[in-house]
Amino acid sequence: MARTNLERQALTSSWEVTRVSPQGAVRDPDVLAREEPLEIRVNGQSIAVTMRTPGSDEELAAGFLWTERLIAEPAALVSVGHCPGKSQEERDNIVLAYVSGKFDLREAGWQRSFPASSSCGICGKTSIEAVRRAAEPIRSAMRVVPDVFHSLPDTLRAAQAAFDRTGGLHAAGLFNAAGELELLREDIGRHNAVDKVIGAALFRELLPLEDRIMLVSGRAGFEIVQKCLMASVPIVAAVGAPSSLAVELAAEAGMTLIGFLRKYSLNVYTGEERVSG
Amino acid sequence: MARTNLERQALTSSWEVTRVSPQGAVRDPDVLAREEPLEIRVNGQSIAVTMRTPGSDEELAAGFLWTERLIAEPAALVSVGHCPGKSQEERDNIVLAYVSGKFDLREAGWQRSFPASSSCGICGKTSIEAVRRAAEPIRSAMRVVPDVFHSLPDTLRAAQAAFDRTGGLHAAGLFNAAGELELLREDIGRHNAVDKVIGAALFRELLPLEDRIMLVSGRAGFEIVQKCLMASVPIVAAVGAPSSLAVELAAEAGMTLIGFLRKYSLNVYTGEERVSG
Repeated sequence: MARTNLERQALTSSWEVTRVSPQGAVRDPDVLAREEPLEIRVNGQSIAVTMRTPGSDEELAAGFLWTERLIAEPAALVSVGHCPGKSQEERDNIVLAYVSGKFDLREAGWQRSFPASSSCGICGKTSIEAVRRAAEPIRSAMRVVPDVFHSLPDTLRAAQAAFDRTGGLHAAGLFNAAGELELLREDIGRHNAVDKVIGAALFRELLPLEDRIMLVSGRAGFEIVQKCLMASVPIVAAVGAPSSLAVELAAEAGMTLIGFLRKYSLNVYTGEERVSG
Repeated sequence: MARTNLERQALTSSWEVTRVSPQGAVRDPDVLAREEPLEIRVNGQSIAVTMRTPGSDEELAAGFLWTERLIAEPAALVSVGHCPGKSQEERDNIVLAYVSGKFDLREAGWQRSFPASSSCGICGKTSIEAVRRAAEPIRSAMRVVPDVFHSLPDTLRAAQAAFDRTGGLHAAGLFNAAGELELLREDIGRHNAVDKVIGAALFRELLPLEDRIMLVSGRAGFEIVQKCLMASVPIVAAVGAPSSLAVELAAEAGMTLIGFLRKYSLNVYTGEERVSG
C-alpha cells in the first residue's frame, strides 16, 4: 500500500472579517474551515467529487471506497495518492486510487460515473432501493459503562486541532472500550471525517472495528450509521441528535446508537445491552 | 403549475429511548427528525435521490431544479407532484416533475443520471470544474442595519416548528429588509431547507430574491452560498461558521455573507456595504 503526501494541506485558512458588536465594528483576522472539492479517481476513472477539508485525502479516499463497498477487502486497494498533475489544484484536489481485479461500478450498485457530496455518503445511488447497502449485522459482545461514554466528548474536544478556532469543522473519533482515543479526524463534512477515520483504520489494518466506539461531534444521520456499519463498528455515539432513519438502520443492524452524549447524560436509541451500568 | 400533497407528511417521528443520567436509566418517548430518501424524476427520468425530511417535497424538487439550473425560467416547470405509485413508499418518496422544452441533463452540465445527497447541493458534478456553476453577480443595492440582523435568529427560532423538539432539524428562513420572516422551511439537510425556501419562492413568483436575506440555522458551506446565488439572494446569514469556499464564492459574486450571527454580535465576511449602521 503506497501512500503519498499525507497531511500536507492545512485544515484552515485566514480571512479578514468585520466584527460588529455593541462596541462598534472592527476589522479583524479570522480563521475559516477550509473547503475544497476532492475528485477521487479509481483505475483512471473519475468516480466522485466530494467537498472536503483538505488533509488525510488518501484516508478519505480509502475510507470512501471501503464504506461504499467499492472494494471487497482492504488488500484490493493497491495504491492511493495525490495526482501528479500539472497545476497545483490538480495536485491538491485529485486523488488517484488503484484497485486490483475488475473494478465494476455498475456491479457495485453505482452509476458509471457518480459523485459524492460535502456532507453525505449516499451519493451515487440511482434509486431509493440502492440507498440501503448490504452489510452483515453487528455481532460484537462489547460492553461499555456509562462513565466511559460520558468522558468521550471532552476527550474528543481536547484533541481537536481546529474546531475551537473555526467553529466549522466536524470531528469523528475512534475510541476503545476504555474510552481511549485511537484516531481523530476532522472535516467540514461529518461523513468525510468518518471516512477518514475508517480509511486510517484500513491503513493500520484495524478493520473490522468490532470492539470500538465511533463518536461524531454533531448529529448522526443515516449515512453515518451506514458507514460505521460497513466498518463493523458496534457502538456509534453522537453529541447531537440522530435521525429517524439512522435509528431504524442501527436497530436493523444490531448496532448500539447513542445520541445527545453529555458529561452526565446520554440517550440510548438502540442496542442498550452494550451500555452496561 | 400543478402541485399536490403539500405538507402531507410529518417532520418528526417518535421512538422509545433509554435516558441515562446520574438518577439512573429511564425508558422515555423521544421525538426524532425524520429522514427519508426522496427520488426526483424529471420528464420520467430519475435524476436525484436526496435524503430529506418529508414535507414540502414539491418545493424541494422545484428549488433543486432551479438552484441547479436544470430549468432556465420558473415557467419551464410545468408540474410537480408525488408519484401516484402502487406502494406507500413510492407515493411518499418519489416526486415527478415535468418541464417544458428539451430536458438535457448533459447540456446542463450533469451526468445522465445523477444523485443528490442529504446535506449538499454539489452532487452530480463529474469534475471539479463543474462544481462552480455560472451565475450573474449580485447587484442588489439592499441595505440592512445591524439591529435587524441581530433580531433574525430569535425570529427564526420562535417560528421553527420542530427544532426544539428534536434538536435535529436545520432551518432556512427568508426575511425582508425590515427583518420580517416571509418563508421558513426545515430539513435534516441544511441545503434541502434552502431548496425548499427557494422552491416556495418560485411557486409564489418571488424570484429573483433581490431584496431578501436568507438565514440558515447552522453553518454556511459552499453549497448554501451557491444555491442562494442562483436565486439572486444578496445577503446570506448563518448562525454558525462559513467555510473558506463559501466566503470565496460570496466574495466573487458580490454577495454579503454574515456568520456567527448573534443577538449582539455578528461577523461580516464579504459585502459589508450592505450592513449599514
